[in-house]
Amino acid sequence: MAPQIPNIKLSSGYDMPQVGFGLWKVDRSICADVVYNAIKIGYRLFDGACDYGNEVEAGQGIARAIKEGIVKREELFIVSKLWNTFHDGDKVEPIVRKQLADWGIDYFDLYLVHFPVALEYVDPSVRYPPGWFYDGEKEIRPSKATIQETWTAMESLVEKGLARSIGVSNFQAQLLYDLLRYAKIRPATLQIEHHPFLVQQELLNLAKAEGIAVTAYSSFGPQSFLEFNMKHAVQLTPLFEDETIKKIAAKYNRPASQVLLRWATQRGLAIIPKSTRPEIMKSNLESIEFDLSEEDIATISAFDRGLRFNQPTNYFPTEHLWIFG
Amino acid sequence: MAPQIPNIKLSSGYDMPQVGFGLWKVDRSICADVVYNAIKIGYRLFDGACDYGNEVEAGQGIARAIKEGIVKREELFIVSKLWNTFHDGDKVEPIVRKQLADWGIDYFDLYLVHFPVALEYVDPSVRYPPGWFYDGEKEIRPSKATIQETWTAMESLVEKGLARSIGVSNFQAQLLYDLLRYAKIRPATLQIEHHPFLVQQELLNLAKAEGIAVTAYSSFGPQSFLEFNMKHAVQLTPLFEDETIKKIAAKYNRPASQVLLRWATQRGLAIIPKSTRPEIMKSNLESIEFDLSEEDIATISAFDRGLRFNQPTNYFPTEHLWIFG
Repeated sequence: MAPQIPNIKLSSGYDMPQVGFGLWKVDRSICADVVYNAIKIGYRLFDGACDYGNEVEAGQGIARAIKEGIVKREELFIVSKLWNTFHDGDKVEPIVRKQLADWGIDYFDLYLVHFPVALEYVDPSVRYPPGWFYDGEKEIRPSKATIQETWTAMESLVEKGLARSIGVSNFQAQLLYDLLRYAKIRPATLQIEHHPFLVQQELLNLAKAEGIAVTAYSSFGPQSFLEFNMKHAVQLTPLFEDETIKKIAAKYNRPASQVLLRWATQRGLAIIPKSTRPEIMKSNLESIEFDLSEEDIATISAFDRGLRFNQPTNYFPTEHLWIFG
Repeated sequence: MAPQIPNIKLSSGYDMPQVGFGLWKVDRSICADVVYNAIKIGYRLFDGACDYGNEVEAGQGIARAIKEGIVKREELFIVSKLWNTFHDGDKVEPIVRKQLADWGIDYFDLYLVHFPVALEYVDPSVRYPPGWFYDGEKEIRPSKATIQETWTAMESLVEKGLARSIGVSNFQAQLLYDLLRYAKIRPATLQIEHHPFLVQQELLNLAKAEGIAVTAYSSFGPQSFLEFNMKHAVQLTPLFEDETIKKIAAKYNRPASQVLLRWATQRGLAIIPKSTRPEIMKSNLESIEFDLSEEDIATISAFDRGLRFNQPTNYFPTEHLWIFG
């Protein structure tokens, strides 16, 4: 029996499953099977992006599950994201249409601005996904698109039925406030890095006050960044091996991973853990089935040290792209 | 002999003194004398703002010094700031003209957007300075003005000769990048909270890469916030009494205050310390006359703990105004 996943009511009026499946770093060679298996296990929300490079394969997994009658399209909640190089107002709709074609669907349930970073357009026939660099190697080339221009184009996606809800990712407080000044359609969700080392209580307060649902990514903290060999990530004791986390996990007779996920969902966030192993996929989904005490939630929140891993300059050296801080 | 103050070349082409005098929290009852004395001691830059409530008196101090032949207007560098309630495009020029009239001058050398927070207009005849609250007590009422609308109005101040340079204060990286997308006149300066507990190296890197000069406020850290009885500020060991800072100060035979100021100017920032006592005013100005070793600079930078005091929600409780984070 797949666990019952609660929904979060978005400002757009649609319901979003509180637990979903994140497609970042799911290799395209296995992505179709991973998505298919995740649906069988009970996942309904899939969080993809142009930049993840696996939208065609994710769509194949979905098509297979639909074809076999495991799920209907309307039972799924498919999320994708606008990459930085498509921020120019006239580039948004064409790339969304391409992404929809890649998935083999005709609307996204939620479409997000991936980063508040406008980069010069790279034609998909030249390189796709285009990544951060104009030349594919090291040149950061900004575009003149403002966030307002991009958001206006995002709004037209809703009007055209290409996206049911729209939102943003990796936005800080000040930019959110500015966006709320000109938005005709308010962002339904904000997706942010969130784990015990980066608790972001104030940003969550802001989102709550403004009626914006928040989705956490990298819920296991440094774990997600070890493969990039980031200094901070490698030096830390993994949260799964942390004595405090292990003690709480033992108390509830649950794996540490479930404790970290439940901590996030009990704080009101949606989560999008990733795993390629069916037993872990299942375990992550089942994190919703127990409750941590308020005291244990507070203990985990006290890990906070404002430690952010997903800062572009952590991946590649450039003075011209420090976007947090 | 007043010390020779180095200039920082702004992107506008104008020179800005690296050491100036900050008018925040200078009581209006003494402000004219304080400014007059500061000029006599050698200060040429004065950093004011509508919100400080003392622009008339600061102008009186300047007028007296000019009248007595101590200084000429063109030798001064007068900075003021646009308050949150005047962000609407049509409200910018009128309030700048009022502020200029208050100072008794016909142009600002530098005019800054004080916070990236647009609040509903409050007529100066109703309450001036208007502060954060629409009703003067507790209601935060946003305006619909975007930062772009405000910045466009700021640019017209330059075209009209009301401000020679324009800039921003309390802006985070993402909002700065967005501003740079639409700015016809780039911000000449960024004014930020900066002290050993809030080193902001990455934001400084960004500003440097983009040719934006940075001015530090609250260079003494928690010291500036003790009078608000802020928990974090009160609990910390004052930097002036910190053993490491005291040891460095003893080594150079300089007061701790000069060490903190020189640490900032050697990092390339402009500073705007405040004092109402002539001997301290003089001492702060003289902080430019010695050099810390690279090692001592690094030791002080290592105090960093990302600790920000000047967050509006630290002054008053509201869920609707978390602007950093």
